[in-house]
Amino acid sequence: MPKIKLVIGYDGTDFHGFARQPGLRTIQGVLEEHLARIHNHPVEVFGSGRTDAGVHARAQVVHFERDVGPPADKYVYLLRRSLPRDIVPILAEEVPDDFHARFSVRTKTYRYTIQRAAIPDVFSHRYTWHEPLSMNVQRMQEAAYDLLGEHDFTSFCASTTHVEDKVRTLFAVDVAQRGTYLDIICSGNGFLQYMVRIIVGTLVDLGEGRLDRQIRQILAARDRSLAGRTAPARGLCLWQVDYEGNEVHNG
Amino acid sequence: MPKIKLVIGYDGTDFHGFARQPGLRTIQGVLEEHLARIHNHPVEVFGSGRTDAGVHARAQVVHFERDVGPPADKYVYLLRRSLPRDIVPILAEEVPDDFHARFSVRTKTYRYTIQRAAIPDVFSHRYTWHEPLSMNVQRMQEAAYDLLGEHDFTSFCASTTHVEDKVRTLFAVDVAQRGTYLDIICSGNGFLQYMVRIIVGTLVDLGEGRLDRQIRQILAARDRSLAGRTAPARGLCLWQVDYEGNEVHNG
Repeated sequence: MPKIKLVIGYDGTDFHGFARQPGLRTIQGVLEEHLARIHNHPVEVFGSGRTDAGVHARAQVVHFERDVGPPADKYVYLLRRSLPRDIVPILAEEVPDDFHARFSVRTKTYRYTIQRAAIPDVFSHRYTWHEPLSMNVQRMQEAAYDLLGEHDFTSFCASTTHVEDKVRTLFAVDVAQRGTYLDIICSGNGFLQYMVRIIVGTLVDLGEGRLDRQIRQILAARDRSLAGRTAPARGLCLWQVDYEGNEVHNG
Repeated sequence: MPKIKLVIGYDGTDFHGFARQPGLRTIQGVLEEHLARIHNHPVEVFGSGRTDAGVHARAQVVHFERDVGPPADKYVYLLRRSLPRDIVPILAEEVPDDFHARFSVRTKTYRYTIQRAAIPDVFSHRYTWHEPLSMNVQRMQEAAYDLLGEHDFTSFCASTTHVEDKVRTLFAVDVAQRGTYLDIICSGNGFLQYMVRIIVGTLVDLGEGRLDRQIRQILAARDRSLAGRTAPARGLCLWQVDYEGNEVHNG
């Protein structure tokens, strides 16, 4: 059965996260509903991973299988006509049988955006965390460096996470100023629940001087309570998902 | 009684417009509720004018009177702590008795933003009209020029408008490209209901070749049905309100 890979962007504000949940508006639920309409039968969508309620995506990747249906390159047009304005189809293409939106992922990149202006821009409030307190950005950058590489990230994930293996590899944690905004960009081979938001909350707590603990010490303890706050969902955006043999998937 | 002038920005998406309406979430309603809490008694707010449901403001101006209460410059801090994130207080100052947020207005400026990229930016969907069809921007600029000056704008306002005098003066109607966005900026001494949105819809219809009529002919007819579409509310933003003796009121 032909397999279609679809890249979508979404404004997570009005969704209860990515994963289908009965009676709730979710990305997977809305997408499956519109794909079922196009094919006249149910279509199951597989995402590169879940995003939590309120989290956005510039370029989430999903796949689905279908026997008959329009050519791959028609999906963007058909879905754009049909989807609500807060989900935008960006790219669709046919992929080999062994492609899987989740299991073939090589690198995921998230961007978290903090708004630091004293007077917040009201048009960014859904997409940023307004935290105007003074921060030692250099200290945050140094702490970010200590997160790189392969670690057990138990201290940086929701304490309710049931995944057994909490070892992940971070390829980049960049803290970058952009005008009155501060972007924290994290790339890695996988992320645990709330991992980026706890990394961001911890870096901010360190930068503001609320927390006085070395990242190495927090990692080694494997104890969520030693890390900082969980930054709010609204500042987080799934930026890019990369697959083997494929450098950049989205514009 | 001291009179306080307050400049606010708001994201109009989740409001039923500016004007207080029983049981509905409106800018005036929310603002009065929070000011009443600060003063421990009801406070009536007067705006520079209403904005319709879904319309935004970068810098709306309101005033209110109060006998006792905090110094003017404390309102921004107090309101920011208390208001929801989609209304942002920007500036507060004491003004002379004869100041009136509505009757003292000299110039109002609105910005309307059209998103023209084939693939819309999902994070702009609440603040723009996505209209990717090809447009003759030069033709739109020429038509905009014919709107300048004093005219009876009956053809460019909601046909249900009950105001008797529909003569207004436009000081500027600028059609400006900004990357893949097109801004239409209108300044004037006053605006009728839907006036900017009908101006924008008409300019777009002319630019796309859907409408083939001179602006002078539309103005002269004083007939709403000769003008173009009413552009959607979400692309419209009250940009600036200027008063006598005061050039710029907002950052």
